[in-house]
Amino acid sequence: MNVEFINPFLSSLMNVLSTMAQTQLKPGKPRIKTDEIACGDVSGLIGMVGPQTRGSFSITFDESLALTIMERMLGERPDSINEEVTDMVGEITNMVTGGAKRLLSEKGFEFNMATPIVVSGKNHTIHHKATGPVVIIPLNSPLGRAYIEFSFDE
Amino acid sequence: MNVEFINPFLSSLMNVLSTMAQTQLKPGKPRIKTDEIACGDVSGLIGMVGPQTRGSFSITFDESLALTIMERMLGERPDSINEEVTDMVGEITNMVTGGAKRLLSEKGFEFNMATPIVVSGKNHTIHHKATGPVVIIPLNSPLGRAYIEFSFDE
Repeated sequence: MNVEFINPFLSSLMNVLSTMAQTQLKPGKPRIKTDEIACGDVSGLIGMVGPQTRGSFSITFDESLALTIMERMLGERPDSINEEVTDMVGEITNMVTGGAKRLLSEKGFEFNMATPIVVSGKNHTIHHKATGPVVIIPLNSPLGRAYIEFSFDE
Repeated sequence: MNVEFINPFLSSLMNVLSTMAQTQLKPGKPRIKTDEIACGDVSGLIGMVGPQTRGSFSITFDESLALTIMERMLGERPDSINEEVTDMVGEITNMVTGGAKRLLSEKGFEFNMATPIVVSGKNHTIHHKATGPVVIIPLNSPLGRAYIEFSFDE
């Protein structure tokens, strides 16, 4: 069930952002995504394939938050979402999923990761099409919002 | 090398759209994506994991083309990109990748597919972050444009 995956993904994200970018986000309550739409400006997506199930993970940032993370990681703030920013979001997606993979492996749940894909564009929304419920966790900060979402086949 | 993957993905797409939606698209010349930006309104994305390599595939549609495909498949044209349209784009992504998987398996190239993810939002762009080149194939029709893109780790 997806719910036991919440902590591995969430703690891996918090760890990556605090280590790499000295950024603390405040997680809101995880919930099952229904009709609500979570939108953002740049998203990292990754597919996962394992013997038990397969699924997908995404992390979506407001532009302001993505640019601040970039500034904290590399010392320069780009004017807008350029290729360096999408590279960084792809790398964060890889690191967060890799961290969650290690934590889930300890629980006996194994998967391999595909390569990340990054989407840029004002106010886009992500729709995970695995057959299980989509778990969404909003994260807030004075710098802007982020969301993580994931879903696995049931 | 990515180039030998072109025909499996392209012929699978042409087959899916002609069979499911009586729609013929005119493929342009496949090329390696460099600085150019291909944007669209709704995209289906999928990750692939195999013993030799891993990668990602995407298909992006203009809204007008996605709505026409929906109309031809289901007999009704939605006013805009709603959940039925994103379900259809996810299903097309699954079918196209599944068809390419079968064709590539005949060439000795094996992978498993993750679950599809669909992105909606005006004029978004997709950035594949595998280490190999990104192959892009534009497709035209009087109904609107589409693009397929894929990339694999080298």
